[in-house]
Amino acid sequence: MKKITLEKVREMDRIDPFRGKREEFLLPEGIIYLDGNSLGALPKAVRLRIRDVTENEWGQSLIAGWDKHGWVALPGKVGDKIARLIGAKQGEVVVTESTSINLFKAVTAALQVGPKRGTILTEKGNFPADLYVLDAIARESGGKVKIKRVRREDLIASLTDEIAILCLTHANYKTSVRHDMAALTRRAREAGAMTIWDLSHSAGALPVDLNGCGADFAIGCGYKFLNGGPGGSGYIFVAARHQNKILPALAGWMGHVRPFDFSSDYQPVSGIARQLTGTPFVIGAAALDAALEVFDGVDMEAVGEKAGKLGDLFIGLVEAECPEMKLACPREATGRTSQVTFTYPEAQKIMAEVVKRGVVADFRPPDVMRFGLAPLYNSYEDVYRAVLTLKEIFKQ
Amino acid sequence: MKKITLEKVREMDRIDPFRGKREEFLLPEGIIYLDGNSLGALPKAVRLRIRDVTENEWGQSLIAGWDKHGWVALPGKVGDKIARLIGAKQGEVVVTESTSINLFKAVTAALQVGPKRGTILTEKGNFPADLYVLDAIARESGGKVKIKRVRREDLIASLTDEIAILCLTHANYKTSVRHDMAALTRRAREAGAMTIWDLSHSAGALPVDLNGCGADFAIGCGYKFLNGGPGGSGYIFVAARHQNKILPALAGWMGHVRPFDFSSDYQPVSGIARQLTGTPFVIGAAALDAALEVFDGVDMEAVGEKAGKLGDLFIGLVEAECPEMKLACPREATGRTSQVTFTYPEAQKIMAEVVKRGVVADFRPPDVMRFGLAPLYNSYEDVYRAVLTLKEIFKQ
Repeated sequence: MKKITLEKVREMDRIDPFRGKREEFLLPEGIIYLDGNSLGALPKAVRLRIRDVTENEWGQSLIAGWDKHGWVALPGKVGDKIARLIGAKQGEVVVTESTSINLFKAVTAALQVGPKRGTILTEKGNFPADLYVLDAIARESGGKVKIKRVRREDLIASLTDEIAILCLTHANYKTSVRHDMAALTRRAREAGAMTIWDLSHSAGALPVDLNGCGADFAIGCGYKFLNGGPGGSGYIFVAARHQNKILPALAGWMGHVRPFDFSSDYQPVSGIARQLTGTPFVIGAAALDAALEVFDGVDMEAVGEKAGKLGDLFIGLVEAECPEMKLACPREATGRTSQVTFTYPEAQKIMAEVVKRGVVADFRPPDVMRFGLAPLYNSYEDVYRAVLTLKEIFKQ
Repeated sequence: MKKITLEKVREMDRIDPFRGKREEFLLPEGIIYLDGNSLGALPKAVRLRIRDVTENEWGQSLIAGWDKHGWVALPGKVGDKIARLIGAKQGEVVVTESTSINLFKAVTAALQVGPKRGTILTEKGNFPADLYVLDAIARESGGKVKIKRVRREDLIASLTDEIAILCLTHANYKTSVRHDMAALTRRAREAGAMTIWDLSHSAGALPVDLNGCGADFAIGCGYKFLNGGPGGSGYIFVAARHQNKILPALAGWMGHVRPFDFSSDYQPVSGIARQLTGTPFVIGAAALDAALEVFDGVDMEAVGEKAGKLGDLFIGLVEAECPEMKLACPREATGRTSQVTFTYPEAQKIMAEVVKRGVVADFRPPDVMRFGLAPLYNSYEDVYRAVLTLKEIFKQ
């Protein structure tokens, strides 16, 4: 690899189509933040919106806020903003609950509308929290539902006519490996199985095309590359063709056709709002709504392209400057999400030192170093300086 | 009833032990707010805390906030604050998810630790959303779980040896009728059934003594008398004796014994944290944490006493000044929650006019007028002026 200089990376930043986006975030001074894959940075618009929704909408309008400020419609409105980022149609996404709760909703719904089979296929290295949700569903089913965990390379071959649902995380939180959503969804459809995709580690960083792939369900969190704030609302996508066939296992008044009639009998509303359960958390949904403004007019293909280039630069620099670190994510940009991963026996110690020097990235047991690259606020210079810091630490 | 004058109610306010509490809330000018049973007012401490958690904790600490600002411990910390208000011990309450999701958790847990029976007993007039959750559980169970809805007066007689769970809302959202929690819980225990109490319409307004009554589970919302903000986090109480026997149906990484090990296998933590599922919504939990500061040092018996007096005054004034309105809640203060309810054929029209004149209260179909009385920020003068407004409207 040709020697990469500071001048060279600054030139890359100068021609970056997202160079102005960084200004839309409030990043702390003196920090290079490479952990947006874990918790996204604070968009300036969110700061203002949270003040407004708290102090004016709640504080001043009080109960009238539900009508006056459109709180009831907020989960659908914010869902529609996410829809564009993940290849969904308007009316196919709603913001609600946490990712795990939404996964439970998706699985129980897919078991209803899918084939009368009992096995859910997933990957051994799937996001642990998703595995916990699946295992609990199997246990509660009393033997009717079984979970089959296989190695990534055995997924296709495992899509037999026993499989009710293929449930995967689009991009792996540790290895950054990105599944071929199109191929796996096609194969699942051929096998008559439903698909559920967890987009937590890809939405907002990569182009995602749920409908283009024919996906049935998807879920994701709002606080990583979507920058909705710590915890915060997750979302659920249900392909339009399934929406009105589902009787939610987590039925709630916000999914009722006429919630304000307070009828004693549940009559589900049509459409994606059927997936709503309790009262929406207005402040959280408003934060995510404002956070998504930074995506206004943004081409997700271009976001994905920059994600690839940031990662390529990171890998190239590490291999030139820090040979101690072992690449643990795909070398090909199209095989990764917007995160690069390396291993090193003393990763925990190194990462603690990296953070001390103002480069925020994280460690995952036992020896994994993760660097999240947020295309909307990370620059090529961030990458350059981060690797320089690593090099200094290794030299000592 | 002796004529009640403005001077008289001002005297009542002068000697009110909570007269200083109103200053801890940001109430809009020129409004008498009698809807805290639906959405509590904004405590000043919440405004500051939300700014801080957003702009400093998230914006500046970013991912380090989880450790530095105790975000992971927040659901338990806030739960402990609620515990004192509802007669629970430290470590028996955790703040998480919405009320409906928590009800699902409580029911599925109670079915595990309770007797091997399939019927859940509830009341016909129970809060509709709670009925939706129960019905969905029954439907998903494929016949194993049945819901028995009976009239309030038939509850005790229906507590037979078929009943697995008695699931009730402590105070009725429409009629304000308060169940005798001690008697019903005792009777349920005698019948070998578990109890689940929804405290949404009583916690923060009345003394509640879950452990004194021997209750097994309870749930509630944070945005009514607890003033945690629109939507916002709910909470769940699990009596210590049951906590470690439950394998959560909604298993999540925050209920794992070592969440940050990212183990592929779920191993539940001991204690109430086992009820946690996804990543806690930090901003919502922080808002509720700050909102609960107004209860610091507050004697809930005294809160309940004031609730009773506010209601007595309201009823007395209405009966003297607005004979058109028919009392639709118990006359005895100990039979009500902190809300008075009346019916009138054209209730919807009247309530719209009341709101137009700056008295915020609400209408519930078909003919119900609800007036919420928040002992910490409503004054006796509020009640006096509200009824005066009603009187003027009826005169026209």
